[in-house]
Amino acid sequence: MSIANLGSFNEILKSNKSFTIASHVDPDGDSIGSVLSLTLALKKMGKCAEPVIIDKIPEKYKFLPGNKLISNQFSSRSDVLISLDSSDINRLGLNEDIRDYGNIIVNIDHHKNNALFGDLNIVDSSASSAGEIVYQLIKDKIKIDNDIAINIYTSIITDTGSARYSNTTPLCLRILADLVDIGVKPDYVSRQVFEKRTLSSIKLLKLALDTLELLENNKIAAMYITQEMLEVSKAMEEETEGIINYAREIDGVEVAVLFREKEKSVTKVGLRSNEWVDVSKIAEKFNGGGHLRAAGCIVELPINQARAVVLNAVSAALADNGGILCKE
Amino acid sequence: MSIANLGSFNEILKSNKSFTIASHVDPDGDSIGSVLSLTLALKKMGKCAEPVIIDKIPEKYKFLPGNKLISNQFSSRSDVLISLDSSDINRLGLNEDIRDYGNIIVNIDHHKNNALFGDLNIVDSSASSAGEIVYQLIKDKIKIDNDIAINIYTSIITDTGSARYSNTTPLCLRILADLVDIGVKPDYVSRQVFEKRTLSSIKLLKLALDTLELLENNKIAAMYITQEMLEVSKAMEEETEGIINYAREIDGVEVAVLFREKEKSVTKVGLRSNEWVDVSKIAEKFNGGGHLRAAGCIVELPINQARAVVLNAVSAALADNGGILCKE
Repeated sequence: MSIANLGSFNEILKSNKSFTIASHVDPDGDSIGSVLSLTLALKKMGKCAEPVIIDKIPEKYKFLPGNKLISNQFSSRSDVLISLDSSDINRLGLNEDIRDYGNIIVNIDHHKNNALFGDLNIVDSSASSAGEIVYQLIKDKIKIDNDIAINIYTSIITDTGSARYSNTTPLCLRILADLVDIGVKPDYVSRQVFEKRTLSSIKLLKLALDTLELLENNKIAAMYITQEMLEVSKAMEEETEGIINYAREIDGVEVAVLFREKEKSVTKVGLRSNEWVDVSKIAEKFNGGGHLRAAGCIVELPINQARAVVLNAVSAALADNGGILCKE
Repeated sequence: MSIANLGSFNEILKSNKSFTIASHVDPDGDSIGSVLSLTLALKKMGKCAEPVIIDKIPEKYKFLPGNKLISNQFSSRSDVLISLDSSDINRLGLNEDIRDYGNIIVNIDHHKNNALFGDLNIVDSSASSAGEIVYQLIKDKIKIDNDIAINIYTSIITDTGSARYSNTTPLCLRILADLVDIGVKPDYVSRQVFEKRTLSSIKLLKLALDTLELLENNKIAAMYITQEMLEVSKAMEEETEGIINYAREIDGVEVAVLFREKEKSVTKVGLRSNEWVDVSKIAEKFNGGGHLRAAGCIVELPINQARAVVLNAVSAALADNGGILCKE
């Protein structure tokens, strides 16, 4: 339960006053939860703290305390810019030089392929989530209140799939317990994060299930979602989340792939694996990235061509006994 | 973290040699996990222990260590019969007098409506699961090994929906952490319990989603599954599990109902609520029962008539500001 570079982090906290807390575009529960928990904690320490995410905050995360504080652009230069949950600096969605917005760059993350772009890097790939690292950074400095606790709780359950994924550690379970002690209601948070369905999302699910195909002796399951399917179901882009799991969870499947038509010639690809394929290696072939069991990439091809090319690479990964196969 | 009647339980353990460990028909992860963890623990203490569940063990729970030990009938009289996770004695599926099978009856359960039928009753409705109570009963008596740990882990995550339901307490989260420390792999267990889908279950899901109807200003969501739908999808009865959540999770829904045609004039009804309706009270009107947020009953009517009668009662419960409405 020790954090590398904690001393340097404390030093930076002590000697600076204004902080910009940023995270990646296409925000999820961990990016938003870690940004808000650290923002609220810094404010409690008497600092100026501005949370920035250059993207739309999904509707379902608007229950998070402090979410209205989030700006969708960087305003002015701070003493310190803290990047959370972002493996490289481009993920922040900035067109300008990050140096324009902070004298010191602190990079807090849990992705194993983190580019270590900070002046100070607090990167722990064994952490379940960025929120878990934030918890350890702040727990001895302030009394964690319910608002901060809900944000950290959301970070951890989002990135561990509510204690279901392989990154569920004794430490993160004990942190969840501490947060429930503080007052977090697990059923309330879980309902917001996992259990909000719209009728449109159910219609989209039915359409996506119709595209399910099984390949390579049922080891690969693939599905796709076109723009037309989004229109017919009246579903939002964010409602595609989770659909890939229907493919991943089929008995015998090792790799699941979901193709989403973003534009006529741009296809977003989500990849998941169950036990032994390192899907981050597949995603990297298409300039994407991620984790061992969950990764993604963007392919600049129409959806049908993207399907052919990516499924080919997945088949090759399954056949390859070399670098790509990776037992944990 | 104290267990009522622990002293009496220890006394019974000390002075007896043969134990039958039983749980309810229609077994789930908690009944099987608690039965097996207690069986394995008693064996470790040098006792004779026979696990009994008078029903088929669902395929997906066959990964549980010790599952092959389970008998589907009571064989001989033991010194002690321990009932787990069963609110009343009929749930054990016995036609004979329970006294035929044990000199002493110990009743270990976490259902709030438990009938206290034991000579010794260890009933704690604040416990997440029967497995959680077993953990507390055995943890100071033996070294919990991986086989026992997996069973208890399965109990807890089954009954808390992997830390999503309102019965997720700091205590059960800390027990999960301890079990991961012992060696349980959360992703492995979760995959067995929650993430095994068959193609047939996906086909059934699509058919069931087609029956979705929203009533009372979208506060009630109802679905049904007929025998014909099971045949068309080639799905097994147990593959209907979880489908009710698609109804419960729709934005604005308070009560979800799933009707399953068991026979031409027998309909099984599952009831779930989100925030304030006590569905156990609705189930009790039809001689069923359960918890505040999850309950069920069997109605001896064809499915269409059962739907009319039960949905009427649900509407009445929603309208009633009296005993049935119950903020936690």
